[in-house]
Amino acid sequence: MKIGFIGLGIMGNFMALNLLKNDVMLNVYNRTKEKAKEHIKKGAIFLDSPKEVAKKSDIVMLMLSDSNAVSNIMDGNDGLLEGLGGEKIIINMSTIEPDYSAMLYKKIKIKSPSSMFLEAPVIGSKIPAKEGTLIILAAGDKNAYDLSTAYFNMMGKRVIYLGDIPKASYLKIINNQIMGITMGALAEGLSLSKKIGLDDNIVYDIVNSGAFANPMFQLKGKNIIDNNYEANFPYKHMQKDLDFAVKLSGEFKVFSPLTSAINNSYILGYDKFKDEDMCAIYKALNFE
Amino acid sequence: MKIGFIGLGIMGNFMALNLLKNDVMLNVYNRTKEKAKEHIKKGAIFLDSPKEVAKKSDIVMLMLSDSNAVSNIMDGNDGLLEGLGGEKIIINMSTIEPDYSAMLYKKIKIKSPSSMFLEAPVIGSKIPAKEGTLIILAAGDKNAYDLSTAYFNMMGKRVIYLGDIPKASYLKIINNQIMGITMGALAEGLSLSKKIGLDDNIVYDIVNSGAFANPMFQLKGKNIIDNNYEANFPYKHMQKDLDFAVKLSGEFKVFSPLTSAINNSYILGYDKFKDEDMCAIYKALNFE
Amino acid sequence: MKIGFIGLGIMGNFMALNLLKNDVMLNVYNRTKEKAKEHIKKGAIFLDSPKEVAKKSDIVMLMLSDSNAVSNIMDGNDGLLEGLGGEKIIINMSTIEPDYSAMLYKKIKIKSPSSMFLEAPVIGSKIPAKEGTLIILAAGDKNAYDLSTAYFNMMGKRVIYLGDIPKASYLKIINNQIMGITMGALAEGLSLSKKIGLDDNIVYDIVNSGAFANPMFQLKGKNIIDNNYEANFPYKHMQKDLDFAVKLSGEFKVFSPLTSAINNSYILGYDKFKDEDMCAIYKALNFE
Amino acid sequence: MKIGFIGLGIMGNFMALNLLKNDVMLNVYNRTKEKAKEHIKKGAIFLDSPKEVAKKSDIVMLMLSDSNAVSNIMDGNDGLLEGLGGEKIIINMSTIEPDYSAMLYKKIKIKSPSSMFLEAPVIGSKIPAKEGTLIILAAGDKNAYDLSTAYFNMMGKRVIYLGDIPKASYLKIINNQIMGITMGALAEGLSLSKKIGLDDNIVYDIVNSGAFANPMFQLKGKNIIDNNYEANFPYKHMQKDLDFAVKLSGEFKVFSPLTSAINNSYILGYDKFKDEDMCAIYKALNFE
Repeated sequence: MKIGFIGLGIMGNFMALNLLKNDVMLNVYNRTKEKAKEHIKKGAIFLDSPKEVAKKSDIVMLMLSDSNAVSNIMDGNDGLLEGLGGEKIIINMSTIEPDYSAMLYKKIKIKSPSSMFLEAPVIGSKIPAKEGTLIILAAGDKNAYDLSTAYFNMMGKRVIYLGDIPKASYLKIINNQIMGITMGALAEGLSLSKKIGLDDNIVYDIVNSGAFANPMFQLKGKNIIDNNYEANFPYKHMQKDLDFAVKLSGEFKVFSPLTSAINNSYILGYDKFKDEDMCAIYKALNFE
Repeated sequence: MKIGFIGLGIMGNFMALNLLKNDVMLNVYNRTKEKAKEHIKKGAIFLDSPKEVAKKSDIVMLMLSDSNAVSNIMDGNDGLLEGLGGEKIIINMSTIEPDYSAMLYKKIKIKSPSSMFLEAPVIGSKIPAKEGTLIILAAGDKNAYDLSTAYFNMMGKRVIYLGDIPKASYLKIINNQIMGITMGALAEGLSLSKKIGLDDNIVYDIVNSGAFANPMFQLKGKNIIDNNYEANFPYKHMQKDLDFAVKLSGEFKVFSPLTSAINNSYILGYDKFKDEDMCAIYKALNFE
Repeated sequence: MKIGFIGLGIMGNFMALNLLKNDVMLNVYNRTKEKAKEHIKKGAIFLDSPKEVAKKSDIVMLMLSDSNAVSNIMDGNDGLLEGLGGEKIIINMSTIEPDYSAMLYKKIKIKSPSSMFLEAPVIGSKIPAKEGTLIILAAGDKNAYDLSTAYFNMMGKRVIYLGDIPKASYLKIINNQIMGITMGALAEGLSLSKKIGLDDNIVYDIVNSGAFANPMFQLKGKNIIDNNYEANFPYKHMQKDLDFAVKLSGEFKVFSPLTSAINNSYILGYDKFKDEDMCAIYKALNFE
Repeated sequence: MKIGFIGLGIMGNFMALNLLKNDVMLNVYNRTKEKAKEHIKKGAIFLDSPKEVAKKSDIVMLMLSDSNAVSNIMDGNDGLLEGLGGEKIIINMSTIEPDYSAMLYKKIKIKSPSSMFLEAPVIGSKIPAKEGTLIILAAGDKNAYDLSTAYFNMMGKRVIYLGDIPKASYLKIINNQIMGITMGALAEGLSLSKKIGLDDNIVYDIVNSGAFANPMFQLKGKNIIDNNYEANFPYKHMQKDLDFAVKLSGEFKVFSPLTSAINNSYILGYDKFKDEDMCAIYKALNFE
């Protein structure tokens, strides 16, 4: 089997390297070829367009930042859709709107009825991507899933099949919804403790000792105290996911006051902090 | 040293038992004597009033549900204040408003200048109380703290001295503020996933696998799925603490949208769910 | 000129009658013919499908409850689009999502390039519709606007041309966003005053005497006190518009905490109150 | 009858002048004598302390910015309480916390049982204060109210007696709660319309044409568009009143998501905008 991998950003870079580590025959494509250097050195073949990747691969994986980026890869004369034909499997691992995922599915089937499609968003950011310990949520053609499991396992520690599209997108959004609010819980607590005059380190210590202590509080709490906002999980991606959660809540009539409040807080500091880490929400709350 | 213990509710019951386990000479008092049965059997002496407890003990600990309950114990002809005299140590372990704690301190010093006072709210609910693994936050007279540490260690796994009153109250509130929002994060995620039609157990599984997985999510998530809302940490106590956090935010001008949102959500279901567990916030969000 | 009018609900009923009052030659269509009785009596011709209406009219106006209803009228073998041809003007007066309005515009141009399209959502509910005192916000082909102004004036007291689609949709949404929050302001004030034990009528009186007194507070305040929730402006329509406002805020990165909060409150009581008046938000806030 | 008037700020200045216009014999006191110039010219007698004002007046009115200011006037060797004796009437017209108002009542009765007390917060800001068209809400000793009505009528267009303390404080808070949210409705609408690219003036025009059009929207909307934030009703006073409303909601268990959201928004910009007009909430929402 030949695998195509499109999108070598923070996440995709490591995911593709993990495939190469397992001696997968890999075609890669990225908007800037520069980022494919290491992959080429390790045996990947760089192709000039998404269309070429589709033509020359059995399975094509996409790992891009948002729907726009996915749409740029899919459409146009050199787009992935143009390269379809036969029994190819397309796997979108980018987090995109559920509706858009459902539409992609239709588009692919119309273009090439024998093609198969999976949405497979991942849980975990830079470090799990590097270490191959992502959690991969998959939905779509069951057949495609069975054929892809081996490759998923090279990139993740757990792979779950959820059924029809867009159930994986839904679960990814809910996961990040909970993460975003939980992140906000820490940020609000630290904001209050600072203005009240408590020692940040003691608060950090207590928060990380109780029943709700968790690895994210340990990592992000430390980063906030150290004033370190280098993007691990970018602020703008968190806001995008929270926006999806807000829309879903509206669509399914679910009362979600915390989701709305945290999304608004991310919006508040969006222009200033969008390229920093999601824990910069601390700065947004403090109107910095 | 003779220790007095007032308040044998969910928490106080186990805390007093842990003192007895360590062969502490214990005077106890509770509004209903019934609840002191086991303590008496294990050697505690039941006294007829808070005043008596104050008179006959060197250190008096209070573990009550709120300021009102504390005030009922302190004031009146049979109240604790009436029994002061000499170098007694009063330790309030109930979670109360910071302002009220500061006022208590003054009241005690006026009544008996040689008395010492500590506020020592605890982190942890029923099970840590039982197992002696509470986290105890102390503030007030340093001397009193040094004399009480041995006893705190019988009830808790960690004891921290924070300085002046009401710094321990502040930290307790911030801890519960973060806990309340984090609890709300889970509740909103589960509400959305249910209406969307995802399998609760898969969501539970994913939430408990990621970077923000924590013991509280494991416990409360399971309880929500099992429709089990028996009070462990009562709903009304969480609402009380969140209300304190909202007031502090107002006083110190801290932008706290999540704290406000979760407090409002607890208020929404207050009349219906106040005596259930704090995870009944799930039901409040669902307008059940 | 022959005018077609599709949708004879609460609003459309009166709007069409106002056209007839001005001796307009009117073709009408409604899902249930029953509702067209009075219009037929006054000279309107009932046609059997949206397609027929399009074929036999120069200008076709739509006044429906939401995008779904509009889509049902536009599409299908008997749909409005099938009846296009020549220089017809389509005017959608229903409040729909801006994106959907922009898409409608494209669809119509593709089907029939010489057709013209206006979006023309209205401000005002049942009574202004009846009295012909609506405010009509129009955007789209300027030519079409000029040709339609005379008819707009039969239904409204003010008509404003805003430029390109979907600017009228935008303004309609913002108007209702402000209205919804303002409605919520009254509902929260009355909720608090009731629980505090103030006399509703005195609160009503004061609220209607100050700098922010307005006709809506007079009308809806009275209805809340009288426990009268008969739909004038339906609850579900307000929630729909607030949902649009929330989405726009997300898209344009506008911090909108009140919009989110009021939308969530409408969502909270949606299932129970959707067919009552928008002022039933009072009952939702009170968890009734 | 001799009237004492304490507090010659934005509001008190005009209120005292209106008493003088009616030939009332007036004793005045202000922290800085400078502000009493015009009153002295018109016949008022400036006294050196609140105590002197109490001694030499039958009715003493206070119009101060907050509880702290009231407390500074009441307490101390030169404080108002020291000057009590006989059947004096104390009227606090400042907006203060209901609890503090109830406490003031007790303090006065303890100091001088024959004294009477009214709380009489006002609705209306600078211009109604100047024009004598305030709305005056009174609660407390009915006798005192009857004796003071004539003077209230010199300052206000309406005077309402509400019964026991702190019912007037409650109603004042609810009035400003509704005003604050309504102000926020306009601010959020204008924020969204600006980012979307609509013409401010058209939005302003539409908002002021509909069912919720009101004088405040006319005035504040114009000021926002003109970038004019000179304090008429100060931002910090609005935040103070919203904070009271949030606390009352917490105390009486009233679900108040909009009140919380608007209070948080005022808190967000507090340090920057506290001395500007309350309509500077527009700038806070825009993170300016």
